[in-house]
Amino acid sequence: MDQQANPNYALAELDKQTMLHPVTSIAALEADGPQMFGKASGVRIAGPLGHDVIDFGAGLWCVNVGYGRQELADAAASAMRDLSYYHLFGGASNEPAVRLADEILTLFHEQAGAGHLSKVFFGTSGSDANDTAYKLVRYYNNLRGKPEKKKFLARAGAYHGLTYAAGGLTGIPAYHKAFDLPQEGVHHLTCPHHFRFADAGETEDNFCDRLIAELERTIEHEGAETIAAMIAEPIMGTGGVLIPPRRYLERVQALLRKNDILFIADEVITGFGRLGSWFGTGHYGLRPDIVTLAKGVTSAYFPLSATVISEDIFETLRDASAEHGPVMHGFTYSGHPVGCSVALENLALMKRENIVANAAEMGDHLLRRLREKAGDHPFVGDIRGEGLMAAVEFVADKAERRFFRLPQGAHRVVARHCLQQGVAMRPLPFIEVVSFSPPLSINPAEIDEGVDAFVRGLEAATPELVKLAADVA
Amino acid sequence: MDQQANPNYALAELDKQTMLHPVTSIAALEADGPQMFGKASGVRIAGPLGHDVIDFGAGLWCVNVGYGRQELADAAASAMRDLSYYHLFGGASNEPAVRLADEILTLFHEQAGAGHLSKVFFGTSGSDANDTAYKLVRYYNNLRGKPEKKKFLARAGAYHGLTYAAGGLTGIPAYHKAFDLPQEGVHHLTCPHHFRFADAGETEDNFCDRLIAELERTIEHEGAETIAAMIAEPIMGTGGVLIPPRRYLERVQALLRKNDILFIADEVITGFGRLGSWFGTGHYGLRPDIVTLAKGVTSAYFPLSATVISEDIFETLRDASAEHGPVMHGFTYSGHPVGCSVALENLALMKRENIVANAAEMGDHLLRRLREKAGDHPFVGDIRGEGLMAAVEFVADKAERRFFRLPQGAHRVVARHCLQQGVAMRPLPFIEVVSFSPPLSINPAEIDEGVDAFVRGLEAATPELVKLAADVA
Repeated sequence: MDQQANPNYALAELDKQTMLHPVTSIAALEADGPQMFGKASGVRIAGPLGHDVIDFGAGLWCVNVGYGRQELADAAASAMRDLSYYHLFGGASNEPAVRLADEILTLFHEQAGAGHLSKVFFGTSGSDANDTAYKLVRYYNNLRGKPEKKKFLARAGAYHGLTYAAGGLTGIPAYHKAFDLPQEGVHHLTCPHHFRFADAGETEDNFCDRLIAELERTIEHEGAETIAAMIAEPIMGTGGVLIPPRRYLERVQALLRKNDILFIADEVITGFGRLGSWFGTGHYGLRPDIVTLAKGVTSAYFPLSATVISEDIFETLRDASAEHGPVMHGFTYSGHPVGCSVALENLALMKRENIVANAAEMGDHLLRRLREKAGDHPFVGDIRGEGLMAAVEFVADKAERRFFRLPQGAHRVVARHCLQQGVAMRPLPFIEVVSFSPPLSINPAEIDEGVDAFVRGLEAATPELVKLAADVA
Repeated sequence: MDQQANPNYALAELDKQTMLHPVTSIAALEADGPQMFGKASGVRIAGPLGHDVIDFGAGLWCVNVGYGRQELADAAASAMRDLSYYHLFGGASNEPAVRLADEILTLFHEQAGAGHLSKVFFGTSGSDANDTAYKLVRYYNNLRGKPEKKKFLARAGAYHGLTYAAGGLTGIPAYHKAFDLPQEGVHHLTCPHHFRFADAGETEDNFCDRLIAELERTIEHEGAETIAAMIAEPIMGTGGVLIPPRRYLERVQALLRKNDILFIADEVITGFGRLGSWFGTGHYGLRPDIVTLAKGVTSAYFPLSATVISEDIFETLRDASAEHGPVMHGFTYSGHPVGCSVALENLALMKRENIVANAAEMGDHLLRRLREKAGDHPFVGDIRGEGLMAAVEFVADKAERRFFRLPQGAHRVVARHCLQQGVAMRPLPFIEVVSFSPPLSINPAEIDEGVDAFVRGLEAATPELVKLAADVA
């Protein structure tokens, strides 16, 4: 290994020699090299093509307050000097963790219908938050004498992370392939995305009726006494920014409650302002038994997640405690004092700068702008969004609702051209969608600049899309 | 919730109202309250009893360079200003991640026999590193056309983290209870701890022969074609600082190799200097196919983990890549640029201050001192260690090798008194052991002070131990 001896050894070459990238094609990486991203500030990041680009992804839906915030750097440095690390095992505690747990619960208690959320368990990633939910639900049902009640319901198109257990809750086939997923006991229901999965002529309400009937039938077929929980993102993110039909979530919850099945709201993306409300829970008037959180809680400056549980669940754990012993689940970095300090400053900053209200306003602006500028494009099938979580879905033929085939990568072609035009956006892995999830601190001029770059990218991609469309004609 | 309105609301009370602690008894927390830890510097932390204590745990085996290092606070703040976050999905990359992958591989390539380690995959916790190994092994065997080869071997007493999949590899019953673990396909072998698990009169070599015969028999019984991997900590940590018999690891590896079974070295604790060598892999001349790392890589200032894979495994993934598509595994925070920057500064600091050599020297000093001061204590059955990973194991009757029963908590009694005497140490959950794993930056005077406090704690605990011993007489 002579790499150390040569400081000019190309970074891209070193990347290929040393890293196994997440969610990346090794063949493509070897052929094209990595895309090196550099310094970032606000909504802009130094892109791989030598110029700054607007990050319409906010990383992976996560840099809520924008890049390069001095306040968060100061909070991290100060916390590292004070208490660089300590754990929460065996009743140990630290002030930032307690303050953050209180702050998260206080934010929820300000939402309609979330007063029953009672305790916060910390981790470091959305995956581990969902993995924790998966474990706690089993634990809860064992403690309350329902050891047969263990199956999980999820939806096709869902993304709940990629630890082994969380990866099985995820409902996107690409993440299962060759990993022996989903594991036994996980059942995926139809994806609640009307534009793509409705039958010909089926109204949104009829589509919703069909989904609810499917859930009802599934519970009956599997037996309510075998089903522990259903997990759902209020709006599915990685699946393609899929906004469920009116009353879908409400009707799902009613059915679950009737059958003593827990409802887990995965708010890893929707939590902390992305929808223009603090949480999807309040936004949609949900009453989840468990909520999972990550990303926005620290604006991704520090890996931190939370699994919030209801008073009912906590009471079952507490009542069994004296006899049953400690809750033997946890992570070294549960309640990391530096991460909790960064999160507290991040949430304070969001409040000082009215970031959540800004997300609501800018979301409206983004959607309007996208519809104005791209609504008539022949390959744009649908433009949708809620707050700063928006998407464009591409179709091969708009009039005939003919779709591209996923391996053609129509949306990847668009994203590639967009990067050249000055905006980073993510092609998603379930259907032909590019998502728009900029930092929530974005302003109208930046949105306009980004949308213009997107439209130029789309125009540049159009000749290639024409060819791909011909292949599925 | 009036908590926010009252800034003097007792923090301990707020803790009980808001947090679900990891690995904690809810009943005990409600009765005794949490133990609040405060500011920390070097090897000292403000303890819950109002005075500073020496942290003989280094958190959870992880604050390798000690608390409060300005260099790491500066590195974090600087990195947050530069590039607060970006991901590695879809071939995206950033310089700190590449530099750290290269640095980790370079450190391994300086070890005897580790030149075959080829690529680094990043995560945020030891749990997710092992969960990643669990997934990658399945993926690897599916790609190379051995879909039946999926079972995992581990050992009783092992600790490999607590995501659902990793929790099943863990071999400590307390972590399985009521969580439906271990999952199917995980087989736990006898714990390789001679002091406790040898038959009467069995020499260490004979004990080792028995363990190897068990492994051989297990492979034969289950069928090598069904077993994917064996995972093992070079020295088991949470199990009780269990140093395997001479030649055990060598003989295990030879058997695995013969049967095309991968060997995964869990170096979450032993990595980055704790044994007085950079890695257990070099320390014991291992040749693992996969190594998992976390904790010490950042001295726990930032959650970061790594799963390092061999060239053989990587080649299988690469060869299948063009046809098979992207490796669809990863985490939002894989290769977090701030974490990688903190890790790079942490490793540079360890080199500048010869922290690894200090760990070797101080480990010898600690062991000598413990044997001098506590070796004759009637309830001290064994004192052992390697580098700054040491343990005292308590027995009810030394001469007759009679043991306490785990629920009696003899070691927890000792730890409680030690905290009062000025040293924080951890009672472990598998057998009656307290561990000694101070920051690797510790000096002789601090070790002497900590050992003296431990001995005072042990003396103070002795009347209670006498009673507990009488109960098992």
